[in-house]
Amino acid sequence: MIESSIGVFDSGIGGLTVVHELFEQLPNERIVYFGDTARVPYGSKSVEIIRRYASEDTELLLQYNPSLIVVACNTVSAVALDVVKATAGNIPVMGMIGPACLEAVATTTNGRIGIIGTQATVTSKAYDNGINAVALGKNIRTFSQACPLLVPLAEEGWQDHRATTLIVEAYLSPLKKAEVDTLILGCTHYPVLSTVIGNYMGPDVTLINSGAVAARNIKGYTTNTTNLSAEHLFLVSDVPSKFQSVGERFLGYKLPLTKQVIFKEAWVVV
Amino acid sequence: MIESSIGVFDSGIGGLTVVHELFEQLPNERIVYFGDTARVPYGSKSVEIIRRYASEDTELLLQYNPSLIVVACNTVSAVALDVVKATAGNIPVMGMIGPACLEAVATTTNGRIGIIGTQATVTSKAYDNGINAVALGKNIRTFSQACPLLVPLAEEGWQDHRATTLIVEAYLSPLKKAEVDTLILGCTHYPVLSTVIGNYMGPDVTLINSGAVAARNIKGYTTNTTNLSAEHLFLVSDVPSKFQSVGERFLGYKLPLTKQVIFKEAWVVV
Repeated sequence: MIESSIGVFDSGIGGLTVVHELFEQLPNERIVYFGDTARVPYGSKSVEIIRRYASEDTELLLQYNPSLIVVACNTVSAVALDVVKATAGNIPVMGMIGPACLEAVATTTNGRIGIIGTQATVTSKAYDNGINAVALGKNIRTFSQACPLLVPLAEEGWQDHRATTLIVEAYLSPLKKAEVDTLILGCTHYPVLSTVIGNYMGPDVTLINSGAVAARNIKGYTTNTTNLSAEHLFLVSDVPSKFQSVGERFLGYKLPLTKQVIFKEAWVVV
Repeated sequence: MIESSIGVFDSGIGGLTVVHELFEQLPNERIVYFGDTARVPYGSKSVEIIRRYASEDTELLLQYNPSLIVVACNTVSAVALDVVKATAGNIPVMGMIGPACLEAVATTTNGRIGIIGTQATVTSKAYDNGINAVALGKNIRTFSQACPLLVPLAEEGWQDHRATTLIVEAYLSPLKKAEVDTLILGCTHYPVLSTVIGNYMGPDVTLINSGAVAARNIKGYTTNTTNLSAEHLFLVSDVPSKFQSVGERFLGYKLPLTKQVIFKEAWVVV
């Protein structure tokens, strides 16, 4: 019998920041993670391509009997959550957008919420629409900014470099001028840069880590019992070496040995 | 009858800097270009994945009856030129590495050559080995540096941003300290950043544009006659809109309407 698990996927390595939170919140759950490292990044690509990849990624996870699928990628959550749900059938699916919108609306006192994410996430307006849907009577304005360079900076590990500070300033200055008091980190790579982002925005701006907020909400979704005997499984579509070496910076835990899957008509494990 | 053409491929948009040179050098040749924008970038991925993609990309170009295939991607040229040649059969294949190595050896007076490129290109040591192979009696030392952030900076169009200057300084300072007098721009994205690179390295360092050098060498390879009636063809694997809008910065000419191809068991034109 295959033990059930929480299936988690991302375009690459950023989703490990969500797995970090799952480890903290649900230490007895088995995690099956897939990072599409052969086709990363998604956030600079088209909606059409992201939707195709999202469907294929979901089909891969379905092979592992998940009791829940977590879309640990804001870009997929923003433009392809319906595709994941349609592919997953009766299995519940959790994205990154909804929980962060609720948290942001509950957090803001001046009604001005900033959103940063990939080009695809920002263009989709998924956060703006999600915030408006849960704002109820509150008078909320959203201000969003695509930050294409933050993902490569996080992967390069340049959290403390002066260039990172300048790039963060360039991207965030319109949001600072807009006097947002709440900023959604709408990409699972960004928590790695939260210190430099927080320093620039100042102590009066609350940062919302979309992955962490989503992970805290998962307790209400999963029906799984403890699985202490089960081992976590980490899969990637490129060879695992880089993921293995960079992954622990994102996971914050020792990363188990990662396996490779390749896409050829259908996904097969190498 | 299908008219012959020069087939050119790259992981994405950078190869358009090579097409720019082909337009200049061979204005009567028909170009069929493929940019693999659905799977870009290649340079941060594994050799195994790059070799698989290189084979698939070559097969696509073979459908267009090329008289020559130009690998307008330093990463593929560095780690998969043998794969392209094996796939192309009798059709001649030109990569980016060899011509730039010859040019660099002919240019240097102090025998110290710098190389910048993607992680995959630098790790392969293709330039170091190529330079040593053509150095003959000359006493040459090579100094190489992977520059992962330069591709996203070039695509973001931040040629003049202070952050770009800082990042260029961080990457190039070891090469400047090594007192190279010749620097190979070993990635077809980098010519877009040649001003900031040149300003940092100083007027005594000659920059070698690998794509331009390769394009100047093509006259000796192609046997094609003039094809003034033929239209150029630009193909990408993601939807064309971003390529279409950013492409002219790399091409330096008006970009004809680009078409999309998708990968599904085999490549088919949409």
